[in-house]
Amino acid sequence: MIATMTEEPGRTTRRFLTPPMQKVHSHLRNRMEALGMTVRLDAVGNLRGLWQPEGAGSKRLILGSHVDTVPDAGAFDGVLGVTMALEWTSMAQEARLPLAIEVIAFSEEEGVRFGVPFIGSRAVAGRFDSALLALKDAGGETLDAVIRGFGLEPSAIGEASMDANVLGFVELHIEQGPVLEAEGLSVAVVTGIVGQSRIRLEFAGQANHAGTTPMNLRRDALAGAAEWIGLVEATARRTDGLVATVGKISVEPGAANVVPGAAQVSLDIRHARDAVRAEALELLLEQANVIAHRRSLSVQTIRQVDQPAVPMDERLTAFLVEAMEAVGLPAKQMPSGAGHDAMVMATRVPTAMLFLRSPGGISHHPAEAVLEGDVEAALQVGHKFLERLTTSQY
Amino acid sequence: MIATMTEEPGRTTRRFLTPPMQKVHSHLRNRMEALGMTVRLDAVGNLRGLWQPEGAGSKRLILGSHVDTVPDAGAFDGVLGVTMALEWTSMAQEARLPLAIEVIAFSEEEGVRFGVPFIGSRAVAGRFDSALLALKDAGGETLDAVIRGFGLEPSAIGEASMDANVLGFVELHIEQGPVLEAEGLSVAVVTGIVGQSRIRLEFAGQANHAGTTPMNLRRDALAGAAEWIGLVEATARRTDGLVATVGKISVEPGAANVVPGAAQVSLDIRHARDAVRAEALELLLEQANVIAHRRSLSVQTIRQVDQPAVPMDERLTAFLVEAMEAVGLPAKQMPSGAGHDAMVMATRVPTAMLFLRSPGGISHHPAEAVLEGDVEAALQVGHKFLERLTTSQY
Repeated sequence: MIATMTEEPGRTTRRFLTPPMQKVHSHLRNRMEALGMTVRLDAVGNLRGLWQPEGAGSKRLILGSHVDTVPDAGAFDGVLGVTMALEWTSMAQEARLPLAIEVIAFSEEEGVRFGVPFIGSRAVAGRFDSALLALKDAGGETLDAVIRGFGLEPSAIGEASMDANVLGFVELHIEQGPVLEAEGLSVAVVTGIVGQSRIRLEFAGQANHAGTTPMNLRRDALAGAAEWIGLVEATARRTDGLVATVGKISVEPGAANVVPGAAQVSLDIRHARDAVRAEALELLLEQANVIAHRRSLSVQTIRQVDQPAVPMDERLTAFLVEAMEAVGLPAKQMPSGAGHDAMVMATRVPTAMLFLRSPGGISHHPAEAVLEGDVEAALQVGHKFLERLTTSQY
Repeated sequence: MIATMTEEPGRTTRRFLTPPMQKVHSHLRNRMEALGMTVRLDAVGNLRGLWQPEGAGSKRLILGSHVDTVPDAGAFDGVLGVTMALEWTSMAQEARLPLAIEVIAFSEEEGVRFGVPFIGSRAVAGRFDSALLALKDAGGETLDAVIRGFGLEPSAIGEASMDANVLGFVELHIEQGPVLEAEGLSVAVVTGIVGQSRIRLEFAGQANHAGTTPMNLRRDALAGAAEWIGLVEATARRTDGLVATVGKISVEPGAANVVPGAAQVSLDIRHARDAVRAEALELLLEQANVIAHRRSLSVQTIRQVDQPAVPMDERLTAFLVEAMEAVGLPAKQMPSGAGHDAMVMATRVPTAMLFLRSPGGISHHPAEAVLEGDVEAALQVGHKFLERLTTSQY
């Protein structure tokens, strides 16, 4: 349904504060109001519905996820977490739980339009840097202008920051990976968001004629890079929970009949424990130097990203685990290999995440899917979780 | 001197039948006429000087090389072979050898302007296909129009083909590789032009999120390609005289945070013996399949070039070896890893080649150089060779 609200007919593409976002807001506002929630749109375009029942304490639970998408997206990445938040709220209402709930549809998470992700949750977490307002999108429009064009007032973004009356934040999201499917599980509790390093390496040797240069007189930059790519894979394979990826490669001069004189590769390396990631990265950079030395190449490295792991809140996570066990589901726990709004929210409030299985591990693609039985499981877990959280307050 | 005759001020770039070629012809024509040669320009722009001394037989030796260049070239690739041919002719005159000599400055060898190499020697060898006249350069001009624009008549190209009165063809050329420098030698006799295969391989797997896809659930096309690149290098290293190069690589989607779903690589593989090249190629393609199977990838191969080796003439080559020994030089013999006009001429007449050392192995670059002592050595070899050839006729 929401997937049909798009910038491009026939494909789901819904970037930050583009016209289809108005339709999404209108749709969600109707659903929130039907649940008796008080609805507001904050100054970065997060749609927020508050359910404040009789007898609830002053503190509220925040539930939600994002409603922007990558280009040619699937129907569930982000959006599912918002609609599930409304379902959980509905369940809490039916069970007459004295629990205040705020549901937030974050306006920006993917970073597509301005190259910077988490714009929505940054504002809610009070982590929005006003320097971001000068960012320009591909059309040359500033973030400031885009916000104004949507009828909002950038100077009010500070008011989007949540107050102190928050119990915590819980995000439901599709896994966007193949782990739950491989293990035949519906849902998992996320233990934390992995830390991530991103590095660019350039091996440099000597470009030479592919016909006239004997093998023993070559300084082939690609041959060196290829050897290193093999070590990247081997290192990650033997280190539990480590993922390491060379996703980009380019060579110069890049002609079939010329021995490559330079090869540039990217490295993306992630682990839930920062020490494991740091140690593996150090080893790989050392091996790059060893390879370069042996082959009479030089190697330069540029560190582009160094982002520590973000653990989820132990208490909220334990409540989710209890809830899973209470409804008879295996209490699968796993780190998230991707960033989420929960990562930003965790800097301010206790935060937890629940993953739903991604059939085929497919995400950021029209074939993205969710199984009905898994949604049912997530609703059952939610019911028990909300009960447990409500009880724990008194 | 000739290097200053260029299309681009400050760099040596002299493509087929561009205006600076007129200056080169004027310069060479003066030198040929000063030697008493009869000069003509054939219909593809080869400048040809004939020295027909009293008492010579009806058959002539052809000497020469090409005068076109790659963009931003050095001063010696091709041109040195033409000026050395004139020096050899001068020596033959001084020694009063009764030997007819035709010196040819081939108009096109590099293939830069029309993407097809050896246009000059094809015409002399009678291998010019008139379909080539429809080829267009980057500016949209046809080969036919370019020839006419230079004041020549395409319909007369057939007359450029050499008659039957040819003893053979000898080309002097810089090595364009590092072998002679590595061995501390001035000159080498070329045993043949290596055969060459050029293949494109595409490994295909599954693009996946670099953070959420565990190593054991990946089908990483680049990891497969990298493993294969290692085998290409290892196979060539252990096979005497084989060179194998992966000079191009590209991956899709090519983002730092996405496991590559596809990787395309080029393979250029050369050897003086066709059977060795064929066997190595077959092994490498088999290994690509083994790697793909083990990694649940697919691999497709497209054969782009399959060019057999061209051996040089045994008798002329033996005369060059004798000449080297006669002047006290080590009789180094080696294949040429690159194509030359000699490769085309060899299809019609006995052909031999002499390489001069390339300092630093550098070619197709302004730093291309030749040592004075090596030129002196090549002149001495030429003297003995011409004497030996003259004697052999009687």
